[in-house]
Amino acid sequence: MTPYTTSRRTFLAASLGLATAGFIRPSGRQPITVGQVIDRIKANVGIPWREQTVDNLIAGKPELPVKGIAVTMMATLDVLQRAAAQNLNLIITHEPTYYSHQDRIEPVAQDPLYQQKRDFIRDKGLAVFHFHDHWHGRKPDGIATGMIRTLGWEKNADPETPKLFTFPETRLDRFAQGMASKLNIQTMRVIGDPNLPIRRAMASWGNLSLMPGVPYLAQADVLIVGETHEWELVEYVQDAITAGQKKALIILGHLISEQAGMQYCAEWLKEFVREVPIAFLSAPEPYWRPDRPRK
Amino acid sequence: MTPYTTSRRTFLAASLGLATAGFIRPSGRQPITVGQVIDRIKANVGIPWREQTVDNLIAGKPELPVKGIAVTMMATLDVLQRAAAQNLNLIITHEPTYYSHQDRIEPVAQDPLYQQKRDFIRDKGLAVFHFHDHWHGRKPDGIATGMIRTLGWEKNADPETPKLFTFPETRLDRFAQGMASKLNIQTMRVIGDPNLPIRRAMASWGNLSLMPGVPYLAQADVLIVGETHEWELVEYVQDAITAGQKKALIILGHLISEQAGMQYCAEWLKEFVREVPIAFLSAPEPYWRPDRPRK
Repeated sequence: MTPYTTSRRTFLAASLGLATAGFIRPSGRQPITVGQVIDRIKANVGIPWREQTVDNLIAGKPELPVKGIAVTMMATLDVLQRAAAQNLNLIITHEPTYYSHQDRIEPVAQDPLYQQKRDFIRDKGLAVFHFHDHWHGRKPDGIATGMIRTLGWEKNADPETPKLFTFPETRLDRFAQGMASKLNIQTMRVIGDPNLPIRRAMASWGNLSLMPGVPYLAQADVLIVGETHEWELVEYVQDAITAGQKKALIILGHLISEQAGMQYCAEWLKEFVREVPIAFLSAPEPYWRPDRPRK
Repeated sequence: MTPYTTSRRTFLAASLGLATAGFIRPSGRQPITVGQVIDRIKANVGIPWREQTVDNLIAGKPELPVKGIAVTMMATLDVLQRAAAQNLNLIITHEPTYYSHQDRIEPVAQDPLYQQKRDFIRDKGLAVFHFHDHWHGRKPDGIATGMIRTLGWEKNADPETPKLFTFPETRLDRFAQGMASKLNIQTMRVIGDPNLPIRRAMASWGNLSLMPGVPYLAQADVLIVGETHEWELVEYVQDAITAGQKKALIILGHLISEQAGMQYCAEWLKEFVREVPIAFLSAPEPYWRPDRPRK
């Protein structure tokens, strides 16, 4: 996917002759700081900021002047390198930076790779903001909004139940193939009778535990998740099918199941952060399968 | 896979004319009980029985006379039905019965499917023994022993490091293809350069967390796991590769990554439980992929 760039804004500025509009020029005299961007996120996300949250500044200081913002699904070293190369020194990431949802450092504190990543962030003068809980907590869920848009499911969304979508009857295999094609997934995994008619799908982007997986499954023909444990929800779905329930499970992969939601986040940010360029940095599906190796 | 049956034993009994050997006939006068089987497992597993363990009798009573034993990777409803149909009323399972490693019932206590499974077990007079910790704790690990045998990796095992295997140099894509073929996996997922030369593999059967995933990865070219979190170890492996480390990750799927270890468990049990038939009940890979639907 092509990252968003400032080209459209620069083009507009040029074509409209906006020479003095400070907010258009990243190098303006009154640069926005990391803390100010976070404050604007808090002011615009539409829900009260939680006391207990993983949405914290993981690296860098609030006073750091922002040159540009990279929005991403997961702050991998690759994404950080690409952000730094594009002079985007604030990274807003949905998933963890240091391999821990709670951003716990102790387990990896002595690990050379952790230290290398930490030092890269410091040496390049980057700040990293973890933006997970409140983007999901937004009404509607920001991740869901982006995924629905990318899948073209706006008209299928159930007005009563946020995660529920209704479709003209489609066989499970074709339904899964359609999602794999739209999201460009090579390693999707599916459970269920390929001929099962799908009319109702519950979509839980990201990781899903047994609970609320069980009540989600009850509301639909197919449950769609990013990631889930084989010894919990996967076993449950298998048992439901054995018991005669007409059910199925589609496992997309975690990153792919949420990434479009961060693409939308980049656009949302542009509504109230106009001083600096904002780019969405996408990542490919992490995996390949043995019959289709990929570098 | 064909389940083990009593045919060999019956054949032996017939050919040797053993009419009175009680231990050969499942319907002998002094039937072995569930508690006695568990006691023999404890006596034979070769390590002290832990105070804190998931290896408990999940359903049924110790006094229940055993008619036959089904050994399985995961006590799905399908496996329980097959066991009951074969008159195997003690099920020994590596993975949970009620979708919880700790066998916690409360989350699903009001769920109709849980109740249906529980009632099936009760109505069919089954007992279920969870056999996880001590089978792994056995020296060598019983799961590893079975997997190594099925993969034909006995000669590749490193004598110093239990999970390490060394191979003649093989490209990652071919190495992965070989494993997928031997274990009959359709939904294997791989990370790494397909051309990466593989000489050393660390294999961690089942679920693997970030720790000890990090030190395992450090010891080999490729880390092989059953299941792991995308936002922890998968991100770490991606970062290691970005940082220039020559590393790879192969994710087999949880059930497939351990199942042969329970096939071996069934054979091990036969060494000291001879009164009743013992069958290994295998399960297929739970998933299919959209381009190869499977009922």
